[in-house]
Amino acid sequence: MKKDINVCYFQSGGPTAVINSSLYGVLKEAKKKGVHVFGSHNGIEGLIKDDLIDLSCLDEKDIELLPQTPGVLLGSSRKKLNDDVTIWDSILKTLQKHDISAVLPNGGNDSMDTCAKLGEHFSKSGISVVGIPKTIDNDLALTDHCPGFASAARHVMNQVKLISIDAHSYGKGKVVLIEVMGREAGWLAASSDLLEAPFHPDLIHLPESDFSEETFLKEVEEAYKRKGTCVAVLSEGIPVHHDTLAFYDSFGHVSQEGVALELGKLINKRLGIGVRTVILSTPVRANPYLVSKQDSLEASELGAAALDAALDGQSGVMMAIKRLSNEPYSYEIIPVPAKDVANKNRLFPKEWILSTSSLSPEFHAYLKPLLRGSIDVKTDEEGLFLSASLQK
Amino acid sequence: MKKDINVCYFQSGGPTAVINSSLYGVLKEAKKKGVHVFGSHNGIEGLIKDDLIDLSCLDEKDIELLPQTPGVLLGSSRKKLNDDVTIWDSILKTLQKHDISAVLPNGGNDSMDTCAKLGEHFSKSGISVVGIPKTIDNDLALTDHCPGFASAARHVMNQVKLISIDAHSYGKGKVVLIEVMGREAGWLAASSDLLEAPFHPDLIHLPESDFSEETFLKEVEEAYKRKGTCVAVLSEGIPVHHDTLAFYDSFGHVSQEGVALELGKLINKRLGIGVRTVILSTPVRANPYLVSKQDSLEASELGAAALDAALDGQSGVMMAIKRLSNEPYSYEIIPVPAKDVANKNRLFPKEWILSTSSLSPEFHAYLKPLLRGSIDVKTDEEGLFLSASLQK
Repeated sequence: MKKDINVCYFQSGGPTAVINSSLYGVLKEAKKKGVHVFGSHNGIEGLIKDDLIDLSCLDEKDIELLPQTPGVLLGSSRKKLNDDVTIWDSILKTLQKHDISAVLPNGGNDSMDTCAKLGEHFSKSGISVVGIPKTIDNDLALTDHCPGFASAARHVMNQVKLISIDAHSYGKGKVVLIEVMGREAGWLAASSDLLEAPFHPDLIHLPESDFSEETFLKEVEEAYKRKGTCVAVLSEGIPVHHDTLAFYDSFGHVSQEGVALELGKLINKRLGIGVRTVILSTPVRANPYLVSKQDSLEASELGAAALDAALDGQSGVMMAIKRLSNEPYSYEIIPVPAKDVANKNRLFPKEWILSTSSLSPEFHAYLKPLLRGSIDVKTDEEGLFLSASLQK
Repeated sequence: MKKDINVCYFQSGGPTAVINSSLYGVLKEAKKKGVHVFGSHNGIEGLIKDDLIDLSCLDEKDIELLPQTPGVLLGSSRKKLNDDVTIWDSILKTLQKHDISAVLPNGGNDSMDTCAKLGEHFSKSGISVVGIPKTIDNDLALTDHCPGFASAARHVMNQVKLISIDAHSYGKGKVVLIEVMGREAGWLAASSDLLEAPFHPDLIHLPESDFSEETFLKEVEEAYKRKGTCVAVLSEGIPVHHDTLAFYDSFGHVSQEGVALELGKLINKRLGIGVRTVILSTPVRANPYLVSKQDSLEASELGAAALDAALDGQSGVMMAIKRLSNEPYSYEIIPVPAKDVANKNRLFPKEWILSTSSLSPEFHAYLKPLLRGSIDVKTDEEGLFLSASLQK
């Protein structure tokens, strides 16, 4: 009798609009290959605490809703693995108990650290560990781009366009500041550069560009004088002086969430111009209506490819996207060493920043093919999107 | 030879996602009736300054994009008319110059003040003035509901659901505060009450309910202890103490935009819990992807009905919606005196506020039929919505 093959998939780090598309890809491929899939509840913590979810609990209807389900369906975690032997013992016990021969971590650079460590640790136990990338920040090394980024970029572009139209409703306009997620890498804010006039932002500031409050005030004033409005797109992580414009939460972490609101107060005080601030916040990574079909497809393909690679005996790798050409867009999925992705940030290229109001056409050519196609979002009668659920 | 009939339509006040659907309705009906339509640029100001736009400049493609075009296409204004004779003379001159026999102001309660005054002033000149309602705040008197509200409500409901799913991604969650437009009336924040568990907010605070910071902190703490997260939906206009939690802009106006961010800091400081704040802001009134088909249809019908009423010689009225039944939903469009709508606010009924976490089922029955159906949003190849434009 053929032995059952069991694999364990988990989700880790912040959500993207397509992380559950990767779960979809894993489940579809597993069905094809006759493989049984467990989900680890709350990332690596499920493996530590033997808190696994038998994913055969998902019926066909739920599975088909995965590509339009925001959040991380299995729960997430930001736990990092260290040398604590009891934790490693717990993980091994869970894997053995459920006879699991492969682990598929789905996450960002912290999760690829977990992936590399798991791969190394279990290299002699015959357990394969293959990572699936995801992050809206698009800052993972060794992959052309990251699942989740394009859908978030599409959200940003659509929001900036509609906010910009809305802002131009009055003869005498306001300054509109739009804050976009991205603490270290500015890929998402940068995507607003694809908008054409009259929707193109007057200013785009990334964490990778220099920032001075005085220069910013001058830029805003100049644009406002010329046009009667000024729309500025700001990454959350623009390098402001923490002493004056950031705040510290109760854990002592510096938070720049709301930095645009602080800059708005400064503009109002110093320039005497009305300001409207929009913080795009978490909907950027969770909007089913603006999922890019290409992004969803790649997330799914990477999930399937990770399962296949693991069944093939590969380990300690992350499946990555290698672009072959822009137009027509083509790519292949390749394994890269997870340890070379771990804990690294691929920032927006400085040479693509032409000014505070324009980025390189190379960036446009890079992003455009990733944005294409829409998914058909199923809703209830009152127009509320449906979502998959583990609760029955 | 039959004399040409010229009418002048204008938009006033804040945008809604369907105000351009009313323009659509006016243009379609005008075509049917052989009437020529001018648009007044920037609300009443276009009539004062003889700045009219001949709307035959809009081609068929642009007209078909109107229902998915955010903002106010013709530009808006917040100008109020007073007794200044020179202004009235200017308006009359513009009307006479273009041989205009009807004026159609499309706006909220301030605009219905303008509508009433224009109607009264020109009652003997044979110029009809008929208003078309709009406001996301749903606070106009004498109409069952207001075009723009349902689409904004649908945006709020979808956003609260996706933010709530996103917020539950971690085992240990945060408090999530969602700030929704609505300075005086809480209809929009209230719409989140239609979400069912597990997406229903833990707290809903409206401008119409009492608010104390201490009680709020207790409510948040209690929900967080019980569930490990707490999602609160707050109207911008909740009655906080202005001294501590609001700020004044350079014009001396009190602004509560960002009040949720201030409350978030308070929660973080006093309860030591992590907080994520999402300010839904202007996209609530500008999102083409969440336009309710019913809302768009009614906005268009009200535009057409206003034109018909004006051609019929009615004046000083606003076209309103009178609901006949909830299920099946039916209504009729009737004229009401614009002066009785002007400068009034219809607040959310206090008797529908059952607690800080639940509203009356009567409100659900009221809102549900207005949310139904979707419009098919046309996009470019990269998934950016298309919009109508006056610039050729």
